[in-house]
Amino acid sequence: MSPKITTELLKQLRQVMKSPKYVQEPVQAYIVPSGDAHQSEYIAPCDCRRAFISGFDGSAGTAIVTEQHAAMWTDGRYFLQAANQMDNNWTLMKMGLKDTPTQEDWLVSVLPEGSKVGVDPFIIPADQWKRMSKVLRSAGHDLVPIKENLIDTIWTDCPQRPCKPLITLDLNYTGVSWRDKIVALRSKMAERKVLWFVVTALDEVAWLFNLRGSDVEYNPVFFAYAVIGMNTIRLFIDGDRMADPAVREHLQLDSTLEPEFKIQVMPYGSILTELQAVGASLSPKEKVWLSDKASYALTEAVPKAYRYLTPYTPICIAKAVKNASETEGMRRAHVKDAVALCELFNWLEKEVPKGTVTEITAADKAEEFRSQQKDFVELSFATISSTGPNGAIIHYKPVPETNRVLSVNEIYLLDSGAQYKDGTTDVTRTMHFGTPSAYEKECFTYVLKGHIAVSAAIFPNGTKGHLLDSFARSALWDCGLDYLHGTGHGVGSFLNVHEGPCGISYKTFADEPLEAGMIVSDEPGYYEDGSFGIRIENVVLVIPAETKYNFKNRGSLTFEPLTLVPIQTKMIDVSLLTQKELNWVNDYHQKCREVIGAELERQGRLEALQWLIRETEPLIRVQ
Amino acid sequence: MSPKITTELLKQLRQVMKSPKYVQEPVQAYIVPSGDAHQSEYIAPCDCRRAFISGFDGSAGTAIVTEQHAAMWTDGRYFLQAANQMDNNWTLMKMGLKDTPTQEDWLVSVLPEGSKVGVDPFIIPADQWKRMSKVLRSAGHDLVPIKENLIDTIWTDCPQRPCKPLITLDLNYTGVSWRDKIVALRSKMAERKVLWFVVTALDEVAWLFNLRGSDVEYNPVFFAYAVIGMNTIRLFIDGDRMADPAVREHLQLDSTLEPEFKIQVMPYGSILTELQAVGASLSPKEKVWLSDKASYALTEAVPKAYRYLTPYTPICIAKAVKNASETEGMRRAHVKDAVALCELFNWLEKEVPKGTVTEITAADKAEEFRSQQKDFVELSFATISSTGPNGAIIHYKPVPETNRVLSVNEIYLLDSGAQYKDGTTDVTRTMHFGTPSAYEKECFTYVLKGHIAVSAAIFPNGTKGHLLDSFARSALWDCGLDYLHGTGHGVGSFLNVHEGPCGISYKTFADEPLEAGMIVSDEPGYYEDGSFGIRIENVVLVIPAETKYNFKNRGSLTFEPLTLVPIQTKMIDVSLLTQKELNWVNDYHQKCREVIGAELERQGRLEALQWLIRETEPLIRVQ
Repeated sequence: MSPKITTELLKQLRQVMKSPKYVQEPVQAYIVPSGDAHQSEYIAPCDCRRAFISGFDGSAGTAIVTEQHAAMWTDGRYFLQAANQMDNNWTLMKMGLKDTPTQEDWLVSVLPEGSKVGVDPFIIPADQWKRMSKVLRSAGHDLVPIKENLIDTIWTDCPQRPCKPLITLDLNYTGVSWRDKIVALRSKMAERKVLWFVVTALDEVAWLFNLRGSDVEYNPVFFAYAVIGMNTIRLFIDGDRMADPAVREHLQLDSTLEPEFKIQVMPYGSILTELQAVGASLSPKEKVWLSDKASYALTEAVPKAYRYLTPYTPICIAKAVKNASETEGMRRAHVKDAVALCELFNWLEKEVPKGTVTEITAADKAEEFRSQQKDFVELSFATISSTGPNGAIIHYKPVPETNRVLSVNEIYLLDSGAQYKDGTTDVTRTMHFGTPSAYEKECFTYVLKGHIAVSAAIFPNGTKGHLLDSFARSALWDCGLDYLHGTGHGVGSFLNVHEGPCGISYKTFADEPLEAGMIVSDEPGYYEDGSFGIRIENVVLVIPAETKYNFKNRGSLTFEPLTLVPIQTKMIDVSLLTQKELNWVNDYHQKCREVIGAELERQGRLEALQWLIRETEPLIRVQ
Repeated sequence: MSPKITTELLKQLRQVMKSPKYVQEPVQAYIVPSGDAHQSEYIAPCDCRRAFISGFDGSAGTAIVTEQHAAMWTDGRYFLQAANQMDNNWTLMKMGLKDTPTQEDWLVSVLPEGSKVGVDPFIIPADQWKRMSKVLRSAGHDLVPIKENLIDTIWTDCPQRPCKPLITLDLNYTGVSWRDKIVALRSKMAERKVLWFVVTALDEVAWLFNLRGSDVEYNPVFFAYAVIGMNTIRLFIDGDRMADPAVREHLQLDSTLEPEFKIQVMPYGSILTELQAVGASLSPKEKVWLSDKASYALTEAVPKAYRYLTPYTPICIAKAVKNASETEGMRRAHVKDAVALCELFNWLEKEVPKGTVTEITAADKAEEFRSQQKDFVELSFATISSTGPNGAIIHYKPVPETNRVLSVNEIYLLDSGAQYKDGTTDVTRTMHFGTPSAYEKECFTYVLKGHIAVSAAIFPNGTKGHLLDSFARSALWDCGLDYLHGTGHGVGSFLNVHEGPCGISYKTFADEPLEAGMIVSDEPGYYEDGSFGIRIENVVLVIPAETKYNFKNRGSLTFEPLTLVPIQTKMIDVSLLTQKELNWVNDYHQKCREVIGAELERQGRLEALQWLIRETEPLIRVQ
């Protein structure tokens, strides 16, 4: 893939950075964060401003353009991809490496005295604004909000903001009605003595109202905000979506409801002025609850004395703990997903030796098999279908320029998932369709040992996920190996494939303690630049664990894999497994055979069933 | 032990909290932190204000007294001790438990509107002031500095501040001269573009000048501050200690030195006015470097714009990485310490069955054997000598009221250490002098597995210690057990037995990455209230590890135990050990036998040598 040539674009951006038409005073630097106004990870094409200006389209990255420099911060998943997609105008700032400066420190080191640094106040989260602004100010510079997005001013063919129809979810899927969710939210608000709650994250709006959309690819969300008062509900949403009778019925827009459940529908763009009006109406001690990751613009709309900011909202925390209906839905979704993958891997085993399958056709075939399953909606993220050296690009997405043919000589890594109406999946399997080398098997087995160490871990109630991260790395560390990404993320229920507030990472972000009902991924890996990538990922449910003792009556937790797809035994060096690990693999495969085997049979997919039975033969230790 | 009766004292304190003689305006709450003006962990008797007002004399705790309440925050190590030592006037706030409020939140919940909360600005660290002050202010209260310490006003028989002679350490012990340390410090200052550095921690002053003292029990430090400029050195210290010819010679006070190495000696009490003068003399961009844990009083002495605050000072970080002379000294100290403990345990094995040994006499005997070793100075902390239920009081110190007789029916836990001129030791062994129960052995073995998991861990360069904490707990967690304290702390070199900036803890404090030359403890445990306590502690040195591969050329680290004292094999349930763990124990014991055996022989301690040989017999797995 050739990098995007950005010389002309950067020239234009530097012009508007000085143009009185857009900025009150010239800015010496302009920050282009990844997100949209909702701090979404996945964004609509109209919000892909950082990709537009730089060419780098990975899911995480921040661009900063000064008069002399253009720099891009991204993390270990994207070092190779960013280096490939950006031209020489750009400097890559590798986050997580010791010598990489923070954005603030870098700005301080390159800016002339008394500079102004501009940013779109809707795109930058309030917590990040605060941190950057403080450092910049202490170095004599100023962070300034630029109302008009400067990228939009030079992006002549910027796509329209999407406004697609909504899906309503009934109680069978959600387990709890939107009215009951509002009641629960108001009770949390009362506990914290706040009068208003501003819902800014798209998945939180969707979850709260039991609605889904398709405004953003892969994430079943729609552009909207909500402001919940103790007696009012305001939903800010555009288009004629509220004209849909199913939606009107679902939200009871035409019923005579108690006033506190009456939803006022308002234009999406009116959130700022409405929130400013709420802010202006407050008396002392009346508070407005916002996420500290809400945009600077919305946060500033509420006078500081009235703000109540938390890292995670009560919706985020409630959403993470899946109820029985959601858990059952997730189980069903994972069974269907496993059926599709058994079909795929059976097909690949036959087709790869012919030399006709590419990364792209394999990904397409995976989507085809998934789309045959009931309640399939769309993929849950861009399929990572990568073979050989492409596997080392951690968040690789095959495109024609990089597309490789799958062969019996290279490792194949497939990280894929789907949105079903009953749940979201995310699974990675690493396969070899020929004979893996001893070294490839060795590395795969270390990754597997890490995967098992997390999946089988027992830990006290109240443990935060980051305390489990080293378990995933220990076997790799013993041999001097490691991987430069976290081990797991929260997974939504027919919602975002990445969600807070829990996760498993060496980065000690403020994760909330794990509790029964939470769902996370377990995905250690190992990557060799230029050679291959290995990752083994299951989605796992936090469940209570039975233990011999029970210290301080705290209770213990462990994980139950929801993903039930065979782990290729050909890749395992059995001599490196402990007996406990070997038993784990055999028990896991037995469950795959029972549960997925029954569904394959029910669906009449007998060839895939035969494949499943072959792939789940118990491992035996060769003495 | 009976609790201290504090009714009268609290009454007096509440009176001075309202007395115009001491406070400009009445304060509705008064905070009594643990520390002294240097934020020391171990403090001189004159600084034990929290113990004076409450009776609770553990090493960590903060008291807050309001007109209605008296509350004490402390951590899991001290729950039992604090409950025993405090009367009913006090409420114990168990830190680390889910429902325990923070001090700020508690204050907000109990104070009447618009309250003033007082604190001694020399005792409260600036970072803590900032955090509390923010929360209090946002709830309509005020944190106010009270110049005169209110405890001191009611403490009629408060002891004098100690002012003992100094010890000078030559290059054989320190490896680096104080002049070279000043040069290195100034180069760090130049890197960060700061003109002044304020040394506030007592161990940092001692380390910088290669001096030791005995103003504080167990910690070989002396009351002093230093302010280092690019061309000046000011040492704030009281008494006639600078009259000692050895000290004058060591500091070259009477030599004709280059001016930038000329030490100006000033009175201890003049630090505030001197620092205010420095602060007043600064031009824009001139910065003063302070620890963010320095007192609020000293931090405020420097105008905010000129402050450069970091969680760890360059001295703290340099001090943590021991050079070759220090490492060799630490090795020598640990060999001597092990000799003393072999003598002790041999003696205990003979004496305990007679029923004449108590926790106190055992501790005294340990000190006696240690004091026979070369360069012994004092103990490095109050010996924890505890048997049976006392073992469950994590930082127990035997006193006549609680003193138990050691018996062949109870577990005995000894956590002890010493200051030698060449190094500091800290070791815990848990023994049984009769026949331990299967359950006691089971628990001991889980703790041992955790100890080994940390000690034998291999991890990448740059790893922070907190990422290793779960390794120590995994075997306990598997059975539903845990312990409510961290796993390890930094250890000084003939300095404080607890030092920053590294450690091993589930609390994700901002620890610095581990690097070769750092020295930490490895001390998992298990405690059953009312029954017994188990802890196995070695001091370990971070060393480079040889690994099969070397990902990204980062290199790997592991630990080498400096402590070489047998781990009682009678307490081990061998069937619970993996082969790797069994080999670790046998290799460790072989090293103990070789190294300590040779020294016991050299010192002619032949009976202890026989004991060592018996105790280091290799474990054999019974098939």
